[in-house]
Amino acid sequence: MEALKMEEELLMIPGPVPVLPRILEAMSKPMIYHRGDEFGAMYEEIVESLKGIFQTRNDLFVLSGSGTCAMEAAIGNLLGNETGIVCMANGKFGDRFKEIADRYKADAVTPVNVEWGSSIELEAVKEALENCANPKVITMVHNETSTGILNPAKEVGKLAKKHDAVFVLDCITSIGGDEVSVDELGADIAIVGSQKCLGAPPGMSAISVSEHAWDLMRDNKKRPYYMDLIAYKKNLEKKQTPYTPALPLFFALKEALAVIKEEGIEKRIERHRMLAKMVRDAVINLGLSLFPRLNEISDYSNTVTAINIPFANGITDEQLRGGMRKRGVIVAGGQGKLKGKIFRIATMGNITEKEVLRTVEALEEVLVKK
Amino acid sequence: MEALKMEEELLMIPGPVPVLPRILEAMSKPMIYHRGDEFGAMYEEIVESLKGIFQTRNDLFVLSGSGTCAMEAAIGNLLGNETGIVCMANGKFGDRFKEIADRYKADAVTPVNVEWGSSIELEAVKEALENCANPKVITMVHNETSTGILNPAKEVGKLAKKHDAVFVLDCITSIGGDEVSVDELGADIAIVGSQKCLGAPPGMSAISVSEHAWDLMRDNKKRPYYMDLIAYKKNLEKKQTPYTPALPLFFALKEALAVIKEEGIEKRIERHRMLAKMVRDAVINLGLSLFPRLNEISDYSNTVTAINIPFANGITDEQLRGGMRKRGVIVAGGQGKLKGKIFRIATMGNITEKEVLRTVEALEEVLVKK
Repeated sequence: MEALKMEEELLMIPGPVPVLPRILEAMSKPMIYHRGDEFGAMYEEIVESLKGIFQTRNDLFVLSGSGTCAMEAAIGNLLGNETGIVCMANGKFGDRFKEIADRYKADAVTPVNVEWGSSIELEAVKEALENCANPKVITMVHNETSTGILNPAKEVGKLAKKHDAVFVLDCITSIGGDEVSVDELGADIAIVGSQKCLGAPPGMSAISVSEHAWDLMRDNKKRPYYMDLIAYKKNLEKKQTPYTPALPLFFALKEALAVIKEEGIEKRIERHRMLAKMVRDAVINLGLSLFPRLNEISDYSNTVTAINIPFANGITDEQLRGGMRKRGVIVAGGQGKLKGKIFRIATMGNITEKEVLRTVEALEEVLVKK
Repeated sequence: MEALKMEEELLMIPGPVPVLPRILEAMSKPMIYHRGDEFGAMYEEIVESLKGIFQTRNDLFVLSGSGTCAMEAAIGNLLGNETGIVCMANGKFGDRFKEIADRYKADAVTPVNVEWGSSIELEAVKEALENCANPKVITMVHNETSTGILNPAKEVGKLAKKHDAVFVLDCITSIGGDEVSVDELGADIAIVGSQKCLGAPPGMSAISVSEHAWDLMRDNKKRPYYMDLIAYKKNLEKKQTPYTPALPLFFALKEALAVIKEEGIEKRIERHRMLAKMVRDAVINLGLSLFPRLNEISDYSNTVTAINIPFANGITDEQLRGGMRKRGVIVAGGQGKLKGKIFRIATMGNITEKEVLRTVEALEEVLVKK
């Protein structure tokens, strides 16, 4: 694999990730006619590649908008009249699904509220399904980057199937970096972001939609417009998007997918696992502790590691992340209520051991020197 | 001004437009931390530049989504309970506002239906305002690219003011290429697309919002999420966007705005006027006729020219546009009900006389040889 250029700032945050030079250069291609054959062939190629990475036979579309855009596309298209929705909420992005659903149909939302950093218990999900009137949609974030937890997609997928509910799985930061077999997991809707494990620049997302999900969408007259998935489906038949696509980001995504193909998806997932473990082992060796509180059906994220700020060492979030930033390494802080309490190191996309070593070295220096 | 590279295909469509090499190259810059100072400074610079081009003191935001995304942002944020909306509809994009409003609040929409290609009459607008229950929003497309008409923004702006309605003006294809003084026109919301007269790649839009518009939005609990303008406002205070911005497109937009500053906005508008006139004169000289039916308050577009397919010459749309495509020039066809009846030549962004001459020559050849 081509090496990342050693930049002044190394981005070890959960997106945007550093982008390989060949992917950056792909964006310098002149504009093409967005309704012509060249675009059509490129869009088709991207869709087919992504279906392979998603491991799905469902329809799949590329949206010119970030992961949040795709999350809203799922909720906005699904939530018609008399549709209840159960939202797993054990982190910022789980909460986001709930917030989006509140905008569309506040009285229909039953959250499964779990303390951030704790794992989802199946009993709580079952209870929510019982308390929800007409539960037709279940949302979950697969890889919750705000807390560093991998949520139990398989188990919740089975519950969704049992209740005949459409299972919406946010795989924004798992697909491309962890094992995600969308069809096996029973995810009726799955979402990925461009600027995470796929290693492309930010600004795009992809979403897959099952027949079960289409059934619910067709009855909904209040679907959003820019994110209208039925319009996306209709236009894909002509190999087009309903509205003008962000061409340079398509060029970049095509190249990013070529990089993934060259590496091989299994090897790529293995590399992500290895690098995340390397980070976990290193921070534990440095005497730090991991933030997630796991149960038997959840796991540590294989793409981002959440670590408690070692207050006992007399160091604050600002000192820790500020010190690393001075050493050229950007790591993420805690989000929302975790601000100041944890920090996060992402190992997504085309990151290698070299970047992880540089990060760990910077962390060690900061902890020693403060 | 730097010259466009002579590409195999010359895009003379109303966006995406050809992009200067220096703007394309700006996208090869490595990713930066989207919550850091460098991004903040860039975002602020872009916003200030655009406020100058919009000629507005209102708030202004850059959305990672196309012009349609910004159109929906306007409607979705404004249309709360008990809000009526009057939509001028004399072309595809005027209709689009109506379609979006239908999704949000179908019973609140009063359209001013005008045959595509005809001009808006003020009497019809007044009538619609009387027929609309609680008309709080008026939408109009300034430069209707589907028909090549410049709609009467000043006159409709005055009517909106008289009725204390929020005036939403789609300037997607006028700002940067025609005289648009947002505040003087009384446009409470104005929208521009990146891939039109600004000469940047597609995938972004900018939207300005007046106090009058904010008043209506604050009461609306059902605002969309990805396009939540109040979230944009809150985050702009920190020089951030609410969701991950499409970084490479920001890099490109910054460079595109530098090109505009170097040329000077007045000169740029003059160039657009001159090139559109050059196209109109040339096609009339070739014996063709312009599509728009103007009245005293509307005008020909200064950024796109809509021309009737000269059926009398025994030529079809496919022969005409196909023939030009073979000669390396892509012009646009008619949209929707105008498909096969008209074709359109855009002169937006960083197009010069050279590209217009190449286009006119190709057209002449096709008409002669068929």
